[in-house]
Amino acid sequence: MFDCGKLFHNYPILESLTAAVKSAFFLTGTAMRASQFFIATLKEAPSDAEVISHKLMMRAGLIRRLAGGIYTWTPLGLRVLRKVENIVREEMNRAGALELLMPAVQPFELWEESGRGPKYGPELLRFKDRHQRDFVIGPTHEEVITDFVRKEVRSYRQLPRHFYQIQTKFRDEIRPRFGVMRGREFLMKDGYSFHVNYADLEREYQNMYQTYGRIFSRLGLSFRAVAADTGAIGGTGSHEFHVIAATGEDAIAYCPDSAYAANVELAEALAPAAPRGAAVEPMEKKETPGKIKCEDVAEFLGTALTRTVKAIAVIRTELAEDAPGRFVLLLLRGDHDLNEIKAQKVIGEFRFARDEEVEAALGCRPGYIGPVGRNNIFVVADRTAAAMDNFVCGANEAGYHLTGVNWGRDLLEPAQTADIRNVVEGDPSPDGQGQLALCRGIEVGHIFQLRTQYAKALNCKFLDEQGKEQVMEMGCYGIGVSRIVGAAIEQGHDERGIIFPATIAPFQVAIVPMGYAKSEAVREAADTLLAELLAAGIDAILDDRDERAGSMFADWELVGVPHRIVVGERGLKEGKLEYKGRGDAEAQMLAREDILAFIQQRLCAQASI
Amino acid sequence: MFDCGKLFHNYPILESLTAAVKSAFFLTGTAMRASQFFIATLKEAPSDAEVISHKLMMRAGLIRRLAGGIYTWTPLGLRVLRKVENIVREEMNRAGALELLMPAVQPFELWEESGRGPKYGPELLRFKDRHQRDFVIGPTHEEVITDFVRKEVRSYRQLPRHFYQIQTKFRDEIRPRFGVMRGREFLMKDGYSFHVNYADLEREYQNMYQTYGRIFSRLGLSFRAVAADTGAIGGTGSHEFHVIAATGEDAIAYCPDSAYAANVELAEALAPAAPRGAAVEPMEKKETPGKIKCEDVAEFLGTALTRTVKAIAVIRTELAEDAPGRFVLLLLRGDHDLNEIKAQKVIGEFRFARDEEVEAALGCRPGYIGPVGRNNIFVVADRTAAAMDNFVCGANEAGYHLTGVNWGRDLLEPAQTADIRNVVEGDPSPDGQGQLALCRGIEVGHIFQLRTQYAKALNCKFLDEQGKEQVMEMGCYGIGVSRIVGAAIEQGHDERGIIFPATIAPFQVAIVPMGYAKSEAVREAADTLLAELLAAGIDAILDDRDERAGSMFADWELVGVPHRIVVGERGLKEGKLEYKGRGDAEAQMLAREDILAFIQQRLCAQASI
Repeated sequence: MFDCGKLFHNYPILESLTAAVKSAFFLTGTAMRASQFFIATLKEAPSDAEVISHKLMMRAGLIRRLAGGIYTWTPLGLRVLRKVENIVREEMNRAGALELLMPAVQPFELWEESGRGPKYGPELLRFKDRHQRDFVIGPTHEEVITDFVRKEVRSYRQLPRHFYQIQTKFRDEIRPRFGVMRGREFLMKDGYSFHVNYADLEREYQNMYQTYGRIFSRLGLSFRAVAADTGAIGGTGSHEFHVIAATGEDAIAYCPDSAYAANVELAEALAPAAPRGAAVEPMEKKETPGKIKCEDVAEFLGTALTRTVKAIAVIRTELAEDAPGRFVLLLLRGDHDLNEIKAQKVIGEFRFARDEEVEAALGCRPGYIGPVGRNNIFVVADRTAAAMDNFVCGANEAGYHLTGVNWGRDLLEPAQTADIRNVVEGDPSPDGQGQLALCRGIEVGHIFQLRTQYAKALNCKFLDEQGKEQVMEMGCYGIGVSRIVGAAIEQGHDERGIIFPATIAPFQVAIVPMGYAKSEAVREAADTLLAELLAAGIDAILDDRDERAGSMFADWELVGVPHRIVVGERGLKEGKLEYKGRGDAEAQMLAREDILAFIQQRLCAQASI
Repeated sequence: MFDCGKLFHNYPILESLTAAVKSAFFLTGTAMRASQFFIATLKEAPSDAEVISHKLMMRAGLIRRLAGGIYTWTPLGLRVLRKVENIVREEMNRAGALELLMPAVQPFELWEESGRGPKYGPELLRFKDRHQRDFVIGPTHEEVITDFVRKEVRSYRQLPRHFYQIQTKFRDEIRPRFGVMRGREFLMKDGYSFHVNYADLEREYQNMYQTYGRIFSRLGLSFRAVAADTGAIGGTGSHEFHVIAATGEDAIAYCPDSAYAANVELAEALAPAAPRGAAVEPMEKKETPGKIKCEDVAEFLGTALTRTVKAIAVIRTELAEDAPGRFVLLLLRGDHDLNEIKAQKVIGEFRFARDEEVEAALGCRPGYIGPVGRNNIFVVADRTAAAMDNFVCGANEAGYHLTGVNWGRDLLEPAQTADIRNVVEGDPSPDGQGQLALCRGIEVGHIFQLRTQYAKALNCKFLDEQGKEQVMEMGCYGIGVSRIVGAAIEQGHDERGIIFPATIAPFQVAIVPMGYAKSEAVREAADTLLAELLAAGIDAILDDRDERAGSMFADWELVGVPHRIVVGERGLKEGKLEYKGRGDAEAQMLAREDILAFIQQRLCAQASI
């Protein structure tokens, strides 16, 4: 047979290396020298790159485009992706989930069985195999895992189970953009849990909530768990995890003093804590010619916008044409915005009233309408509007508004008071812990209580302790692994390039020698330092390309390596090396013998979350 | 933001763990207890499983079928797959190749550019995206990597480069079978190297030849590198790596005393070392009624089959109907088989002659034909047949053969002597190092000198030292990662199940306590042993399922775990544990305090190749 002894006699046996070196080696191979690695930075980003992360990923040479929304991860980019993937995997394992690997290609019949097939849009990539059988490239795996579990799990004794995988997915986006942030082919962690009852699903949901917190913390990202609308399922059944970034697509309301966070559209606007004040002003009719917006009325009358009330006329489309209460006035404080999803939960389906409908109901055209003197009209006041006193509103007469209006005295108390507006900065936090702030985020994770939807459709049952058949409760838990790389860059960058957290930077340390080819002292010091760092399990690269210092510095700053050590002849004469952190304003000279401990301390500080 | 300190206060910080524990943890998570893990063994394999590896993978619960040739890797199976993957990755990195990740989905236009698109059969999965653009799910990535390199590499200074990836591939096999051995979706390592000239490609090819040797050695497999036919490219340009298994699809000729190995159909049959003997027998015509096969003639005449010569009449189809030499007699020793590929290389395209064509040329019907007395017929003798003396052949007369025939004396020397037969056991090895043996193998790797085929088609060029544009030389290197798991099982199994090499077994050690729930002493000893093994970086699982001993033993034997430690009350009283290796005939009692060192030694012996 093949004689291995002969092949190996010149190689150290890998098993004899320390685990730390092995682990660095696992990612690095022999390519811890820039000349052996593949560095492909660009001066300019391609014109199709719209957002900063896409531009920087292209410029830093982390990805290259093959087709719209389809990218090759270069060796440099793949290092980042794998580090993210490994942190996700480690924490999922620690949380007790079991990794498996389901096929990317799924029979379409399972999608018919779940009922999802016909509903899914053209993002779903379908194809026929050579025997004309229907398949899909799975964007998610609820059907496949449910099919797996219904065949493997019979008894309550085999539950709970949580299976996950980390897999390349395909979603045929109509307009792929933002690089890896909304690509067509992407890497995803998707997990699915199975339970005997809802209480156990909730336990695992909390477990995942905490696990996701650990994952994003270890990734070194600033993030928020955001309550997401779960429609019919109930308020606590879904959270999105957002990386905070000014460029994020989603607006988030959060409380800086607590863990509360929600999509702006879902955050609850509480009633003001202070009770309604006394009716001290008389109600007066004021001429407000041409002033139909609250801002203009307030300015014209010399009062605060927060003292005005706007009335929005809507038609409840679920009611018959002549039903009482079909025409509704929604009242909001002048500076607040209507939240249509919330309003719909209160009054059902509605549309905005047409001008002629407003005139027919109130005898006045829009712009000057209000609730006073129209006791037959169904009024829904926002909680804040309902708590106002001595306010300004339309007089139901073109060119006029009323001031000093007070509930109870000048008009009936509102027929209904409800939360029908978007929250604003400074609103009280719904958890009672402080005031809300607003920020923008990029969704990178989602946990969801599926309950019995798929288990019912696919007949995924178990025998309970009494031997009775029961449908399983299910949860699902996703993380956009490739998306995280883009989100980390949206969060961390400056004019020189990417600022990666040390845990996911392609390399932790760049050693940049000045005159590697020319100076033996420099070469020896740099080589020794590299060996020392690698032996300590630090993921370092030595830039032996011998280019201009400025060009090498620019590359490592663009790529986002957090620590840089310059090895130069002058410093070496004094036994010193130059250190600069990616975020530091200035470089500093450090004694050669201190450098390893210094780097270890810095890495430790960054990792100890 | 999210307060992580609060989440973490009950958790050990992962970074503080030793690297060895972390590495075990990485694969295991908290699931190093069988009750938390997913063990799903079956008594019977499904009826569609034809080969032993497929049967055992199903029975051991390593895979589950989703559709024809499409499998889910269970947590247990995925551990094996990942271990194989990691060994491949480590050795590719060590060899200086750089891992990247190309998209699975490729634009079809690249396949048109390379010219491979139209030629590829229905195994190639093609589809149109929602914008009606043509794509394929790439079975290999020559086009994509060549496109990548032609855009990124301009100068000889940037060469050589070797990029590889480990990726899920899809190939729409018409008849998927043998489980993961010929699946439709499978995991593959594919690497591609780029060079300034052929000499440098040859250097990298040798590097990969040795790297593949290290990979399969570390995987603990008995294997052979086999020279493969490369058609026009040349003899040294392609090797297949085969795992040796009696059930293998391919027949391999190899030399036990050297590294020589080749597909049986390609192995060269040398001329016998001994010279032709003297013409001692007279030529005699013997009656051989009804004996048309050499075996029958030899038996009838009471001589050895190896003293007979068979003549096979063929027609060279490339020559005109009346061209001289169109009718050819191929001569082989009676026990040898014609190798049509070799013969074709000698005489060009041919077909077997029809009976009437034989009669017209030789005046005799097939079965009794021979070269004697037919000097006008073109004769090609196999090297062995040409070296025979005093042999038996057809007399060109129905019912008669000639004995004591000698070249030169009784007929002209053959017009041409060439290697036109398959090798047999005992033939001299072409490298002169001994005799050939035959075995069967499963192809798990392939290295190939592509030369300039793709680089030319896709215009992948570089500027040489003189600033002149040159086409790159390319190599490609594949390993069937999922196939290796099947091949390892074909090689290693017995009636009780799988015998995995320790390097790729799902767990290295199974701890089986007798009465885990009942006996506190057993429980404590088992828990302590587990912690001890894990802390030493050994990949152990504790079977806390508390089932019947026989059933637990059967599971771990079926699954192929190489080391088993039984913790029982009786042994503990004497400070002993029972150890049994998967391949051992008998269990042995070991002192509790010696067990770790014992296991380490055994694992070390298995890994030190």
